[in-house]
Amino acid sequence: MASPYDAMWQELGLDLAAHEQLLQVLGGGYQQVFLGQPNRPAGMDYFNFVMSEVHGLRVKELVEAQAAGKKVIGSFCVFVPEEVVRATGATLVGLCTGADFAAEEVDKLLPRNTCALIKSAFGFKLGKICPFIEAADMIVGENTCDGKKKAYETMGKMVPNLYVMDLPQVKSDQGRALLKAEFARFLKAVEDLTGVTIDAAKLREGMRIVNDKRKALARLNALRAADPAPISGLDALLINQVAFYDDPIRFTGSVNALCDELEARVADGQGAMEKGAPRVLLSGCPMAVPNWKLPWIIEQAGAVIVGEESCVGERGARNLVDDSGQSVDELLEALVDRYFQVDCAIFTPNPQRLAHVEQMAAAYKAQGVIHYCLQFCQPYQMEALPVEQALKAQGLPALRLETDYSQEDAGQLQTRVEAFLEMLEK
Amino acid sequence: MASPYDAMWQELGLDLAAHEQLLQVLGGGYQQVFLGQPNRPAGMDYFNFVMSEVHGLRVKELVEAQAAGKKVIGSFCVFVPEEVVRATGATLVGLCTGADFAAEEVDKLLPRNTCALIKSAFGFKLGKICPFIEAADMIVGENTCDGKKKAYETMGKMVPNLYVMDLPQVKSDQGRALLKAEFARFLKAVEDLTGVTIDAAKLREGMRIVNDKRKALARLNALRAADPAPISGLDALLINQVAFYDDPIRFTGSVNALCDELEARVADGQGAMEKGAPRVLLSGCPMAVPNWKLPWIIEQAGAVIVGEESCVGERGARNLVDDSGQSVDELLEALVDRYFQVDCAIFTPNPQRLAHVEQMAAAYKAQGVIHYCLQFCQPYQMEALPVEQALKAQGLPALRLETDYSQEDAGQLQTRVEAFLEMLEK
Repeated sequence: MASPYDAMWQELGLDLAAHEQLLQVLGGGYQQVFLGQPNRPAGMDYFNFVMSEVHGLRVKELVEAQAAGKKVIGSFCVFVPEEVVRATGATLVGLCTGADFAAEEVDKLLPRNTCALIKSAFGFKLGKICPFIEAADMIVGENTCDGKKKAYETMGKMVPNLYVMDLPQVKSDQGRALLKAEFARFLKAVEDLTGVTIDAAKLREGMRIVNDKRKALARLNALRAADPAPISGLDALLINQVAFYDDPIRFTGSVNALCDELEARVADGQGAMEKGAPRVLLSGCPMAVPNWKLPWIIEQAGAVIVGEESCVGERGARNLVDDSGQSVDELLEALVDRYFQVDCAIFTPNPQRLAHVEQMAAAYKAQGVIHYCLQFCQPYQMEALPVEQALKAQGLPALRLETDYSQEDAGQLQTRVEAFLEMLEK
Repeated sequence: MASPYDAMWQELGLDLAAHEQLLQVLGGGYQQVFLGQPNRPAGMDYFNFVMSEVHGLRVKELVEAQAAGKKVIGSFCVFVPEEVVRATGATLVGLCTGADFAAEEVDKLLPRNTCALIKSAFGFKLGKICPFIEAADMIVGENTCDGKKKAYETMGKMVPNLYVMDLPQVKSDQGRALLKAEFARFLKAVEDLTGVTIDAAKLREGMRIVNDKRKALARLNALRAADPAPISGLDALLINQVAFYDDPIRFTGSVNALCDELEARVADGQGAMEKGAPRVLLSGCPMAVPNWKLPWIIEQAGAVIVGEESCVGERGARNLVDDSGQSVDELLEALVDRYFQVDCAIFTPNPQRLAHVEQMAAAYKAQGVIHYCLQFCQPYQMEALPVEQALKAQGLPALRLETDYSQEDAGQLQTRVEAFLEMLEK
């Protein structure tokens, strides 16, 4: 089916036939998973529209901004400071990592035992179906897990513009110094790319934009403490996913408008799910579009997801940056302070993450935690068992699941989730 | 069978019955793999003896040294600077990681997708069969791969004395500063443990002892360039394995005595293998005692292994420390310079490793490279394909193998190795 964006996609170098197939699958999946939900807030219309234009209007905006001299930077991780990018008027977009594509080609470049997220990033590139990666003026990798760290060496041969950010593994003084040095180097790289010199005012403006986004997401999350929950976990996850590539100011406005509606719902005792539905906290690996398999299974089974302890969720979006600094260096220190709190499983030790899971479970009145791991994601797999044990020791039921992007295990997951939910209801 | 060491092992807390079983298996395996080799140098008698006393006399020495006030430090990695330990008169020993034990218990603590080496370290501890880990006054972990980094969090609950050393991931100025700070912290920790203050003279003495060991191993390696090779790859691997726990001065003397004999062999055109036997370089993951499966298969098939590009091999032992510094800080800088050259796959990028593989292949006249990966070892798996491709592009045949500590795949490995060797001989 011809699209008004065909010319743009062709110019970006996409494989139009494969891309059309992707859009069909994505559209069908979206319809099945999202549009059939009962009692959706009207404010989700905006996100439906964004998703319907995921590779269309949003990409057009970016390409038009580029024509006007603005830059687009792609990333795969919440450690890349959007504030710095925004300070130059450039745009940071999360790149596609949520579905399997071009698996045969990917298997020629990556070990079999690589997680689905990394394979997906390669598949979208090799299959020429991600307009964001094709449009990006710079792609930022980062040394988080071994898988990504080493895969970027290969990706560097596939894209002309890969920049790799080093990250610490320990929250020590040296670790913080490394992060500070890497943020300073990134700031310089963004200045070089954009031709914009970042001063304190510009950096503060970047911080304001991103803080506003985080505040809106925090407001949304807080509303989910209500019973009945005013919004489904699937819709909340979708909003977190859209946060990675939508225009941040428009996004923030849309989330706040939705929150106005949800506040009214809460006041009225109205919800997206039934009052008394089992309340589940999801914790673990990030879920990128269109990785909706597990949340869908959970909510189809009658539970409501009340929070996401994930990079695509509260782990990625919580904690504001103190934007009161008067110099770029002061602001950079504040930026490091904020990002150094991210409790990714790459850090050792990482007790802050367990504390956050416990805090979220209490705040959102979760009756149980489902820990979600991508197969072969060693850092989260290694944390899964200690997290489960610690939660159970506190009387909070927990279920560890491991999966990938295929649908093959959907039945098995469903059985395990249903058994877990039954236990919660007893 | 009662052993004269039973009382010592019992005192260390070993499970005597399980330990006896281990020694039986180890002894049988050693006999089959090593003692049947043709044309072994007489100098291997020393190493036969060391292996026959692997958990006996050597442990007795350590326990006696402890009774005399000396300390024993255990480690899992070539990044732990033995020079610092030696400077205090303490002993550094490599801990057991080369065989599967207590698999059921291990599976309760570690993800299924964990490499055999890490599982083995846990198995030896849980099965109470490693006298070294039981005897150690301090155990040093290190943030190399995700697997080890995160597994130490769990191991910290199993042993009373775990110290974790952070490591950089990039060979940048910040990375070097981190290593320097971590070496300084380690030096302080060893001082605290031993009650010995490390001055420049003591540190230089530690460096001399460890440099001498490295020189002896380099001398051994150089002799393997001859055709016929004067020593089998299995025996050379064994010597590298013994290097991790034998008394270093006695070890160095024994290697040098062996090298005298091998020099005479080379002068006489005598070898451990036939002249003209296919020459193979082994490259990849470390092989700890008793992980001899793959080298045995290779040499049983009639080839000779002429070098090990491995932590238990040249990657771990090459490069001397400049011991000319006059202050502890100067010497520490030299130590960092040396260890920062270790081209472990945890670093990104890591072009030095490929260069070293190429250099070893040329120096030892290898006709092909067998790249060996432990299953689920992401860093080496990620490097395997680019290394293979680079070698092939230079006309050097390469074979990528992936295995674990089981014997289940021995037949399949044998078939693949034989096919590879046939290709080399054409």
